[in-house]
Amino acid sequence: MTGARAVSRCDQLGAPPYSDMPGGLFRAYLTPAYFAAQDALAGWMAKAGMTVRRDPAANLVGRYEGVDPQAPALIIGSHLDSVRDGGRYDGPLGIMLGIECVASLSAQGKRLPFAIEVYAFGDEEGSRFPAAMLTSRAVAGTLHPATLDMADADGVSVAVALPGDIDAYLAAARRPRTTLAYLEAHIEQGPVLEADGLAVGTVTGIAAQLRYSVVVRGMAGQAGTTTMRLRRDPLAGAAAMVLAVEQLARSDNSDVVATVGVIEAAPGAPNVIPGEVRFTIDVRSGVEARRDAVAEAILARIAEIAKARDLEIAIERIHDLPASPCDPVLMDLMDAALAAAGQPVRRLVSGAGHDAMNMAALCPTTMLFIRCKGGISHNPAEHVDPADAEIALKVMLGFIERLAARYA
Amino acid sequence: MTGARAVSRCDQLGAPPYSDMPGGLFRAYLTPAYFAAQDALAGWMAKAGMTVRRDPAANLVGRYEGVDPQAPALIIGSHLDSVRDGGRYDGPLGIMLGIECVASLSAQGKRLPFAIEVYAFGDEEGSRFPAAMLTSRAVAGTLHPATLDMADADGVSVAVALPGDIDAYLAAARRPRTTLAYLEAHIEQGPVLEADGLAVGTVTGIAAQLRYSVVVRGMAGQAGTTTMRLRRDPLAGAAAMVLAVEQLARSDNSDVVATVGVIEAAPGAPNVIPGEVRFTIDVRSGVEARRDAVAEAILARIAEIAKARDLEIAIERIHDLPASPCDPVLMDLMDAALAAAGQPVRRLVSGAGHDAMNMAALCPTTMLFIRCKGGISHNPAEHVDPADAEIALKVMLGFIERLAARYA
Repeated sequence: MTGARAVSRCDQLGAPPYSDMPGGLFRAYLTPAYFAAQDALAGWMAKAGMTVRRDPAANLVGRYEGVDPQAPALIIGSHLDSVRDGGRYDGPLGIMLGIECVASLSAQGKRLPFAIEVYAFGDEEGSRFPAAMLTSRAVAGTLHPATLDMADADGVSVAVALPGDIDAYLAAARRPRTTLAYLEAHIEQGPVLEADGLAVGTVTGIAAQLRYSVVVRGMAGQAGTTTMRLRRDPLAGAAAMVLAVEQLARSDNSDVVATVGVIEAAPGAPNVIPGEVRFTIDVRSGVEARRDAVAEAILARIAEIAKARDLEIAIERIHDLPASPCDPVLMDLMDAALAAAGQPVRRLVSGAGHDAMNMAALCPTTMLFIRCKGGISHNPAEHVDPADAEIALKVMLGFIERLAARYA
Repeated sequence: MTGARAVSRCDQLGAPPYSDMPGGLFRAYLTPAYFAAQDALAGWMAKAGMTVRRDPAANLVGRYEGVDPQAPALIIGSHLDSVRDGGRYDGPLGIMLGIECVASLSAQGKRLPFAIEVYAFGDEEGSRFPAAMLTSRAVAGTLHPATLDMADADGVSVAVALPGDIDAYLAAARRPRTTLAYLEAHIEQGPVLEADGLAVGTVTGIAAQLRYSVVVRGMAGQAGTTTMRLRRDPLAGAAAMVLAVEQLARSDNSDVVATVGVIEAAPGAPNVIPGEVRFTIDVRSGVEARRDAVAEAILARIAEIAKARDLEIAIERIHDLPASPCDPVLMDLMDAALAAAGQPVRRLVSGAGHDAMNMAALCPTTMLFIRCKGGISHNPAEHVDPADAEIALKVMLGFIERLAARYA
């Protein structure tokens, strides 16, 4: 088996020229590192028996022809880009395992009733342009054209960075009825499988996400001269709000998670009481109603705190992604493949977003989570045991076999 | 009277070429704006009847000779530098009022038993080099030579920026027994005088300050995939600590103030549970023992919170300034001058540091606080009523008269 090779290929792509930063991995959409990594991938895809093309959104696509070239294809995909100073497996491992699936079938001279297309999506993390999951939205046909009018931090637009024609971008959308299903293997990026002693698990869907940006305004002042009683300190208020976010999510006793990841006080000097504090709130759950109930409780509590402390608040909802359930029939096939590979069957929700949530607009989707050490991701310490990748590959091949038997 | 002129001269120096930033005031030590402002000041000092020199620390000094040139001099001073985007009166108003005191005496042809030296200190805010109150420490003879081995953000050292010889810097120290007393008028930078409906007040001393830098470390993680129960979130912990800082200072029911002015979460993304949070704590009181008791309670509470949440903490004390009481005899003279000017006598502690705290090592000190609108300082909205400056000038002249009567 070659799950170990999939892991070692991720490692190979973990440093320059496949990374845009020295001493770590940062691979953003349409950068030199991105194109270097595509070149390496194209070689591996060809070697596995695929024909390789780059679509109008600069996704790399390898195709392993099926018995009937007209039959809708199975897409196996994940993303090639990474966050700054990220891990080597978040994204690429799913692509490499897709290539290994094809390599295995091709080595056995096995043709399926349908073609397999392996997609290396270009932008999932949103680490270059101010929008995430650009290219899977393009493929699914759900990308709004206006989204392309954006530029990166250096003012370089998608149009300028793109090797092809920006007007052709939306042509990356697959034509209706050309796609049978979408399969994505991805590291869990969380601690659940490890805590349960499992190598892999069937994903039930992607959690619904809400994201807010909160601004709290009070009265700035000299730290030494403003008596405690005369203060309207927005940071003390924000601290109470951060604790409320944690407490309300925790006391829901469900799969709801709520996180404050960014906080900033202005003007930001040790001897100045801040005048303004900004922070973000991210709320998720596999069930939208549960997520919304906790988010509403959080917003209500924030308003109470602001009122009690005579602070002004401005809250903007910057993100509202509905839950994206995986296909029940495909989940059953995945469970069967797990059992056949000698793995305990375990289903879990994905708290993080994945390209699969966009592909769901195009076709039924399924995901396989792979255990990662300590649940650590978006971090150079991200680690996957090659033995777990072997198991994942076995399960994916079992899934493909069952899909072929069913849809043939 | 010319208190109004003192205010309008501060306004004059509030824009380029006397500011290093367009559209606001930023005047750092030894910059082009700094030297331009010194040139303007030198002209006003000369016009008021003073001889003008620049000392080896690049402070501008005007001297109005007394009857006995050998007698120890009264120094009236404050600072010429400002924070970035600061107000026009924090510092310069005290210098301008010193010049007006001399202008008034000189216009009456009045010589005192002692000389008056008006000092425009170069660096009080520490807005260029990583040390504050450099030049009053140099004058008081308490500047550690190693402090001069520092560079600004652009790598320019004090030696390079200084027009004179860096080796002569410490010669800015006044010789023993050349100084009778130090008088500083300064805006309050706080809301107390305004709340009490008073134009000016006698300062009892400068509060003792403690400053800490706190690092809280937990476990970073993906915001969507780490269940609430598995988190070790340093930002939620820091939020509890920020609230403890506020609560412990408030419940002391004294003059103790405690402030968190800076907070930062790393890596700092909306979808990532932070792994590390840094914040500052500033604690002050007119009485060191009170300050220390509250600071100890805060540190103990922080340790408890960290322990309960399984977080690591590292706390560094980055600042420990003892209280600097003003001279009781001079305070009485100031009170008498207040009463003679028809002002209610009011004493208040200074929560902020001032050059006076360094000059206390050299001679007895006294300070007069002037009301500023809304207590706002370190802000372009800083405002002083010219009528209040007139009152301050009258009180300062009354103080000088009483000092002359006493020390003659």
